[in-house]
Amino acid sequence: MSRQTSRLDAKKVNSELLTLTYGALVSQMLKEIDNPEDVNKQLERIGYNMGVRLIEDFLARTTSTRCLEMRETADKIQQAFRLYLNMQPTVTSWSSSGDEFSLVWEQCPLSEWVEMPNSGLKYCTLIPGAIRGALQMVQLDVQCWFVQDQLKGDSVTELRVKYIKRLEDAVPAGED
Amino acid sequence: MSRQTSRLDAKKVNSELLTLTYGALVSQMLKEIDNPEDVNKQLERIGYNMGVRLIEDFLARTTSTRCLEMRETADKIQQAFRLYLNMQPTVTSWSSSGDEFSLVWEQCPLSEWVEMPNSGLKYCTLIPGAIRGALQMVQLDVQCWFVQDQLKGDSVTELRVKYIKRLEDAVPAGED
Repeated sequence: MSRQTSRLDAKKVNSELLTLTYGALVSQMLKEIDNPEDVNKQLERIGYNMGVRLIEDFLARTTSTRCLEMRETADKIQQAFRLYLNMQPTVTSWSSSGDEFSLVWEQCPLSEWVEMPNSGLKYCTLIPGAIRGALQMVQLDVQCWFVQDQLKGDSVTELRVKYIKRLEDAVPAGED
Repeated sequence: MSRQTSRLDAKKVNSELLTLTYGALVSQMLKEIDNPEDVNKQLERIGYNMGVRLIEDFLARTTSTRCLEMRETADKIQQAFRLYLNMQPTVTSWSSSGDEFSLVWEQCPLSEWVEMPNSGLKYCTLIPGAIRGALQMVQLDVQCWFVQDQLKGDSVTELRVKYIKRLEDAVPAGED
């Protein structure tokens, strides 16, 4: 894959196209894979690989420096949501030790128009995957999981992010 | 699926996210489907269904009226490329009878970073599918095919659009 540098500037496309393309990806996977839990896992892995790719672009655009604590990391993640998905989740519900927080949102371009019957599918699992992948590339190991989901009838979607450990400086290979 | 009307305004997301999501869709299909020709067909059908969805949004945004001849249609398609993919293909190579033209471009967010080994895959087949689907909804039956493809080593990508017939006013059901 060759990178065309001219695309580092903030190119924007229509969000509906992303919504529909992501919808096509999820349906395609549901067609091929019986167990929704396995679809979640694969979506997480796809997200992870996207995060691994996108972090480079994010760092180049925002000229970010290394985050020294999780509050900074939370700010950067929020900035990434704005930059890539044109949405701004609220950062909230910090744990007392400051190692865990929630990102909360009401509307997300990925799940626009989506209605889900009862199912084990976590439709937006691309997002926690992307966060995990991006942060791995800056030597930060986190866990990321949904605690509320509008598609399951909750009033908001809430994604929990938990600091696990700082990684050694060796850059991990992308998961495939 | 319920439509949230607040999203009719021109919401934009980052094009890299679309690039990567479309890439994930194509890889997913290549994993499951042996014959690249069958992947092309499915991508065309997915594109068709997107076109069927997007035309409504396009008409609402552009307050377009019915096109009376193909040159107008070509202009609208060009406008749609700008609106949805943030790119502007050249309209060119009209047939003498004015029923056939080419859209030519050098760079497309869908195929960014993509390098393709020799393969029967037509990576961007979503696009002719979407054009065909969108035009069907305004009672225009067209054929759409690639005559040049940068991913196959051509200097540009050229998509040919040919008028077939005007359809009866009954709205066709979406293909599934």
